[in-house]
Amino acid sequence: MSKQDGLYFLPLGGCAEIGMNLNLYAYNDQWLMVDLGISFHDGLGVEVIMPNPQFIVEQKHKLKGLLLTHAHEDHIGAVPYLWDQLRCPLYATPFTAQILRYKLEEAGLLEEAVITEIPLNGSDQIGPFGVQMVRLTHSIPEPNGVLITTPLGKIFHTGDWKLDPKPLVGEATDHEELKKIGDAGVLAMICDSTNSFQEEVSGSEGDVFENLLDVLKKYPTQRIVVSCFASNVARLQSIAKAAAACKRKVAIAGRSFHRMEQASRDNGYLMDLEKFISPAAAANLKDEGVLYICTGSQGEANAALKRIAEDSYRDVRLSAGDVVIFSSREIPGNEKRIGHLKNLLIRKGIHVVTQHEYDIHVSGHPGRQELRQMYEWVRPKIAIPVHGELRHLVEHGKLARKCGVPEVLIADNGSLIRLAPGEAEIVEAVPCGKLGLDGSALIRLDHPVMKERLRLSCDGIVMVSVGFDADLKLLDLPSLTMKGLVNVDNVLMQAGKVVEEALENMSKGDKNNEKTVEDKIAQAVRRLFSTTLDKNPMVIVHLLYG
Amino acid sequence: MSKQDGLYFLPLGGCAEIGMNLNLYAYNDQWLMVDLGISFHDGLGVEVIMPNPQFIVEQKHKLKGLLLTHAHEDHIGAVPYLWDQLRCPLYATPFTAQILRYKLEEAGLLEEAVITEIPLNGSDQIGPFGVQMVRLTHSIPEPNGVLITTPLGKIFHTGDWKLDPKPLVGEATDHEELKKIGDAGVLAMICDSTNSFQEEVSGSEGDVFENLLDVLKKYPTQRIVVSCFASNVARLQSIAKAAAACKRKVAIAGRSFHRMEQASRDNGYLMDLEKFISPAAAANLKDEGVLYICTGSQGEANAALKRIAEDSYRDVRLSAGDVVIFSSREIPGNEKRIGHLKNLLIRKGIHVVTQHEYDIHVSGHPGRQELRQMYEWVRPKIAIPVHGELRHLVEHGKLARKCGVPEVLIADNGSLIRLAPGEAEIVEAVPCGKLGLDGSALIRLDHPVMKERLRLSCDGIVMVSVGFDADLKLLDLPSLTMKGLVNVDNVLMQAGKVVEEALENMSKGDKNNEKTVEDKIAQAVRRLFSTTLDKNPMVIVHLLYG
Repeated sequence: MSKQDGLYFLPLGGCAEIGMNLNLYAYNDQWLMVDLGISFHDGLGVEVIMPNPQFIVEQKHKLKGLLLTHAHEDHIGAVPYLWDQLRCPLYATPFTAQILRYKLEEAGLLEEAVITEIPLNGSDQIGPFGVQMVRLTHSIPEPNGVLITTPLGKIFHTGDWKLDPKPLVGEATDHEELKKIGDAGVLAMICDSTNSFQEEVSGSEGDVFENLLDVLKKYPTQRIVVSCFASNVARLQSIAKAAAACKRKVAIAGRSFHRMEQASRDNGYLMDLEKFISPAAAANLKDEGVLYICTGSQGEANAALKRIAEDSYRDVRLSAGDVVIFSSREIPGNEKRIGHLKNLLIRKGIHVVTQHEYDIHVSGHPGRQELRQMYEWVRPKIAIPVHGELRHLVEHGKLARKCGVPEVLIADNGSLIRLAPGEAEIVEAVPCGKLGLDGSALIRLDHPVMKERLRLSCDGIVMVSVGFDADLKLLDLPSLTMKGLVNVDNVLMQAGKVVEEALENMSKGDKNNEKTVEDKIAQAVRRLFSTTLDKNPMVIVHLLYG
Repeated sequence: MSKQDGLYFLPLGGCAEIGMNLNLYAYNDQWLMVDLGISFHDGLGVEVIMPNPQFIVEQKHKLKGLLLTHAHEDHIGAVPYLWDQLRCPLYATPFTAQILRYKLEEAGLLEEAVITEIPLNGSDQIGPFGVQMVRLTHSIPEPNGVLITTPLGKIFHTGDWKLDPKPLVGEATDHEELKKIGDAGVLAMICDSTNSFQEEVSGSEGDVFENLLDVLKKYPTQRIVVSCFASNVARLQSIAKAAAACKRKVAIAGRSFHRMEQASRDNGYLMDLEKFISPAAAANLKDEGVLYICTGSQGEANAALKRIAEDSYRDVRLSAGDVVIFSSREIPGNEKRIGHLKNLLIRKGIHVVTQHEYDIHVSGHPGRQELRQMYEWVRPKIAIPVHGELRHLVEHGKLARKCGVPEVLIADNGSLIRLAPGEAEIVEAVPCGKLGLDGSALIRLDHPVMKERLRLSCDGIVMVSVGFDADLKLLDLPSLTMKGLVNVDNVLMQAGKVVEEALENMSKGDKNNEKTVEDKIAQAVRRLFSTTLDKNPMVIVHLLYG
């Protein structure tokens, strides 16, 4: 059977990893992309990474559209970076479309892209795919599941979701709609696995509001800063509502908050709250009359909270007795940086309040109880867990089986899965990988330059330049420079000597052979650094011939 | 008052940080060092770091001895590296002394060092300091608190401890002795803060044994690997005892385990257990007749468990259905690496069991209930929390105040604290810092080379060599090499051109001035990389003159 004949699912990002989601569906050799996100990378000059879309770029005339489920970075963040390669129609609900427009405008691409807005709970047709947006709850306005209808069956792609009976932003999940979808028959459900190890339900944003209010009341006269993700509009709402209840005006620090506020208000969210002010505008308010919301809960170097802690944020100054509330979780990998930030604050005598002391954070993803409920409603024939590391997918898969799903597939990025006809199976592993933003260029993350950078960062580099005149006599003393190496025992001077010795031991024939000269010099220098310092630097030799 | 007149405490490591403990006490201008540990560093070519002992090295004739409380790396690990600078008498109880001898022998220093063994609960005199070892419980044999007696008062230095009613290795804490110490009057207690945020008691190793046994019984026929820290001899005992109860022989993977076993048996610990075997010797045993204990619970690249997961550990092969038990906690900063390791195992179909599912790990440090108990027994006049990040010390300090301690001081590394006479206070900040093992050299961690390495790892380096003949004409085409940079848009060729252009635009006078030539070339190259790639590489220019 050729690929023309079936219905396929192909994740290129977000499968067996958390972040940078890219999902593809194919029917009759026509493709639909769902989400295109980024993730963050630590070190080696690359901060933003994303899936390598090469597989679909090579057949982009078959790509009928990119549908974005919601406006989080791990779902829409890569659109501006990969736009030039894709240039396909874009689809999103209004709030997501507005955030996307901000991003495209910033990249100077707004004129080029065509965004089709699908209303909340609305439908559209993208090539052979009927798409119906299904309103769920998460931590941002308009998180959508997508019901994809094809002649070979229906797919329910959940996107990011949780069950929140009191979501504060947007309405609660429409249980009846989900049951109806299940009743009509679902071939496959592609579902969020983030919290598949968590038995408990994720918890409600409404409770976070209540608990935040309790914390604020404990510090009636102090200056208060609350840190959360700018994209967590639900949290923004909870914090601002609690602040209003304590007669504090809300000042937001960071452009990303302003954008989220604007897009939210433009689309009818946050409407019961006074407009937020800037920290500069809050300068004349009394401590007890203001609450600052800022970015940087993960200890990021340039974010507002770190700068506040370092006294380098002009408009927010904290001192002993003030309060900083972390209304966030610690993302794995950030623990040390966050600990460092807390220590900085505590050194200034600031009270640090976290979710360890009060329930002031809930996840936006479903725990096992919620997953069970979803399987009960949707009753798919096939379950494919996505949006998680492999261990999350496997754990989610076991749960799906226990929920009675007949077919469960654990996929990797690049696993091309035939959903129909016949039993679902992985039919091919297609090329996939990661791209990283390196300065202004996108490079493959497995590019040899990344290993080179790692080597440079550990062992440094020595460069040697040697010039010969027309008679192959030394033009000048060899030049040597080292970077990333410590001049212990004057090793640089020693290196100069071993280069001279190596040159003295060469015949005229040797000297005429560039490769021989380079190798002998590099070898001698490497040996010296290895024996005297136990280091293994790169050695670059330049030869100039007169 | 001069420093000659008082009793002082000075932490140079382990205060407002976890790891690399170095504590100093001074009386009458004579010094006693307690512990000298290392910590681990991630990246930039440095893996092992330790406190910079310069302050005491500069007056080492006044250093009467180094007393080691127990054999964990963060308490004894730096002795071989700093021995050459210190060369002072060493004191330890027998088990610690043996581990120390292994380390010194490995470094070829055993002949030079004199180690005085103090028996368990024994005493000695080190200069003006009477020292009495006080048996506590922790996770390694012979964890000692030290009661230091001086003419100006007694200090109780706890070292690492917990209260374990069923410790398995060694005896339970001697409550009566601690009460007696309190009755006799303690001026200051210098105490472990690791778990000062944890209300619950740390838990007993005896319970870990019971729970491990339950887990082993769930997998009666499978091949089982248990991972824990090699230095956690208490855990080694629990695991081995549970294995014996299931009629499994214990095979240990890793030289560090062998050392710990040998030192333990030589000193009368682990005596109720059969001698452990090597994985090679276990090769012919049935799956259900062996249990492997291995290092690598933190996902370390070269440790046994990672190699087992990658199928590159010759004598232990796992396959689908086998079991790997993590009997350890996740040390902050290692979460991502550990997650990656778990995913590797799960990909092979291995059951991964962690402390999230079963209580198979307990901490070796006191929770708040235990701290309260200790303050009740010892009743010091002064409390100085150590062995924790700043937030742990501050939290511990609050608790000490609540326990009725009249004076609480929060110290940083380098805080010279006068304990007596008069009220305790920080009288001076003395120089301190970190040393890192860079190849075979110890370098300061704030050495500019560390920033150079970071820069190289992000932005790479371009080297340019230019030769002039005696008439200042170009000898040869300039040579260019770049490392850590991607040749996007053939930027290297472009760089060659901008170098040639820069040279063409120079007067003869310019060319005669090395600095001018270097600056103009470097500037041109930097500008090119900045505009075309948005990268900011180092640029090194070598000029050779005929």
